[in-house]
Amino acid sequence: MSLLVTGSIGIDTIKTPYSVRENCLGGSAVYFSMSASFFSPVRFVGVIGSDCPFDLAKVFADRDVDLTGLEIRTQSKTFRWAGTYHEDMDDRTTDHVELNVLAEAPPKVPDKFKDSKFVFLANTAPVLQQQLLEQINEPVFVAVDTMNLWIQQYLDDLTTLLKKIDCLIINEDEARMLADQQNLVKAMQNILDMGPSVVIAKKGESGSIMCNADGDIFILPAFPAADVIDPTGCGDSFAGGFMGYLAQSGRTDFETLKTAVAYGTVAASFTLEDFSVNGLTSKNRTEIDKRLELLRQLTKF
Amino acid sequence: MSLLVTGSIGIDTIKTPYSVRENCLGGSAVYFSMSASFFSPVRFVGVIGSDCPFDLAKVFADRDVDLTGLEIRTQSKTFRWAGTYHEDMDDRTTDHVELNVLAEAPPKVPDKFKDSKFVFLANTAPVLQQQLLEQINEPVFVAVDTMNLWIQQYLDDLTTLLKKIDCLIINEDEARMLADQQNLVKAMQNILDMGPSVVIAKKGESGSIMCNADGDIFILPAFPAADVIDPTGCGDSFAGGFMGYLAQSGRTDFETLKTAVAYGTVAASFTLEDFSVNGLTSKNRTEIDKRLELLRQLTKF
Repeated sequence: MSLLVTGSIGIDTIKTPYSVRENCLGGSAVYFSMSASFFSPVRFVGVIGSDCPFDLAKVFADRDVDLTGLEIRTQSKTFRWAGTYHEDMDDRTTDHVELNVLAEAPPKVPDKFKDSKFVFLANTAPVLQQQLLEQINEPVFVAVDTMNLWIQQYLDDLTTLLKKIDCLIINEDEARMLADQQNLVKAMQNILDMGPSVVIAKKGESGSIMCNADGDIFILPAFPAADVIDPTGCGDSFAGGFMGYLAQSGRTDFETLKTAVAYGTVAASFTLEDFSVNGLTSKNRTEIDKRLELLRQLTKF
Repeated sequence: MSLLVTGSIGIDTIKTPYSVRENCLGGSAVYFSMSASFFSPVRFVGVIGSDCPFDLAKVFADRDVDLTGLEIRTQSKTFRWAGTYHEDMDDRTTDHVELNVLAEAPPKVPDKFKDSKFVFLANTAPVLQQQLLEQINEPVFVAVDTMNLWIQQYLDDLTTLLKKIDCLIINEDEARMLADQQNLVKAMQNILDMGPSVVIAKKGESGSIMCNADGDIFILPAFPAADVIDPTGCGDSFAGGFMGYLAQSGRTDFETLKTAVAYGTVAASFTLEDFSVNGLTSKNRTEIDKRLELLRQLTKF
C-alpha cells in the first residue's frame, strides 16, 4: 500500500569524539525515505531553499522515492542543524539550529499523494503535522514523531493531534514527560489513553518497547553495535523501516507490527555505521534481511 | 550439580518515592539463595553478628538452602545498608553503610562444601573473593560480581581474580569503567580478554547482554514492570536465577547460558515487586516458568 512521509531535509554538521562532518545531507524525511524504500515505494513531501547543495533526485536515483512533493522555495533557505555527540554516543548536544523553511508554512501534499494509506509525520510542530494530515483523504495507519519542545510548549496542539493518529513513535524520556509518569510501561499506557492505538518508545542503544491498546507488549533490544560512527537519523531510519515494512505487507496486526519494529531496528543499526545516509545507501534488502535473522538469533532463547 | 554462594546478609533500610521500610532482611547471599533455590539446592556461606534480628533457618524453611556455612560472630555486628531510590527507580543513593562483619576476615567454607561445582562470589573485595575461591577444590563454573569501588581502588586484585573465574556479572557502567571503553560491546570484549569466558552486563530496566569468548552474544530485555516497589537485590536475584538454573542443568553451553539469563531476568522481575525478599518468597517454580514463557512471547518476532 502507498506510503507517504512529510519531514525535513537538512544540511547537517556532525561532531563525534572521533570525527567531524560538515554540511552533509540529513533531515527526517531523507533518513525515513532511504530506510523505507528498502520495503516499499515512498511518496516524499518536504521543502528546501535555493541554497540546498544536494540533488535529491540523484540521492534517491536507485530508490523508488517519488519526489513530486519536494518543494523548492527560491526565496528561502534550507534547514540547518549542527550537533555534537558525547563519549557514549547515546547523548548529543545541539550546537546550532537554523529552522529556515521549517519555520514557514508546511509544504502542500500533491493531489496524486492524497490517497496515501500509510503516513508518517516526522517531528515538527503538532499544528503543522495536523495541517499535513488533513490533506490526506483516508489514511489507514498514521504514525507521528514528536519531541520535548512540543510537549512542553504546545501540549494542547499535541493532544488534539494524538486523537487523530494511530501510532506515536517517541523517545523514552519524552514518553515519560508526555505522560508525566516515570515508569515507562505506565507512561505508555497513559499515552494510549490519549488516542493512539499503538505507542513505540525508543530507548537508543537499549532498543524499543511497543504497546497497543489491547494490552499487547513487544520489547526488542537494539542490534549490538561495536562501531558507532554517527547516530544521527537513527530514529527516523527506525520509523522508515517500521512504516516501510507495514506498507509493504499492507497489514497492521500486532505480529506484523512486531516484525516491522525489528526491521526498523535493523535499519537504524545500519544508519549509525556511517555518517549521513551512507550507512543505508551502501546496503541492499538482502543485507537487511540477513541482519534481521541475526537479530532474531541474538534475542531468541 | 552443587551450588555454593558466598555473600552478605544485611539489615537494610529502603526509601522509595512511595514508601520506607526499616531494618528489613537484605544482603547479596540472601537474595541469591532465595532466587537460586527455585532451581537447585544452595550451599550458603556468610557471616552475621549477634545483633542480627533474622532467623535465617526460618527465612529459608521452605527452601533447600544448607546454612552450615552461616557463621555467627558474637563479638561482631551485622552488615547494615540504607539507601534511597529516586523517581525513576533505576538510580539510587546510598545513605548509610556499616560494613561491620564484612570488614573482618571472610567466613570459612565448611569442609562438606569444598567439593562445590558451581560457585557465586557476590560483590566484596576481590582479595576476599579470591580467598573464598581458594577454599573450593575443583569448581566447574565460577561467577563473580564486583563494583566501581574495587575497579577504582583495587584493580590489581580484581584483574588477578578475573584470570581465575569463568563469568563476570557486572553493571553496564562498571563494565565500561573496568574496560575503560564507552562502547558496551567493545567493553565486554575487552573484559573477556582479561580472563573470564563469559561476561554479563546488567542494564537495569533495559535488561542484560551476555558475551562469550567464542563471539556469541545474547541480548534480553528486562521483564516490563509497571509496579516497581523495591529494586534492592535485583542483581543478586538475577545471579541466583542464572546460577541456580545452570546448577540444575549441570551444563554451561551457550544455549543453556541463554536460558539461565532468562531465568535470572524473571527472578529479578519478581524481586522488585515487593520489599526485601518478599517478591520471591511468595512465588513458586510454576509461577517462575509461567513468566519465563511470557518473557519469551514479549520478545519473540
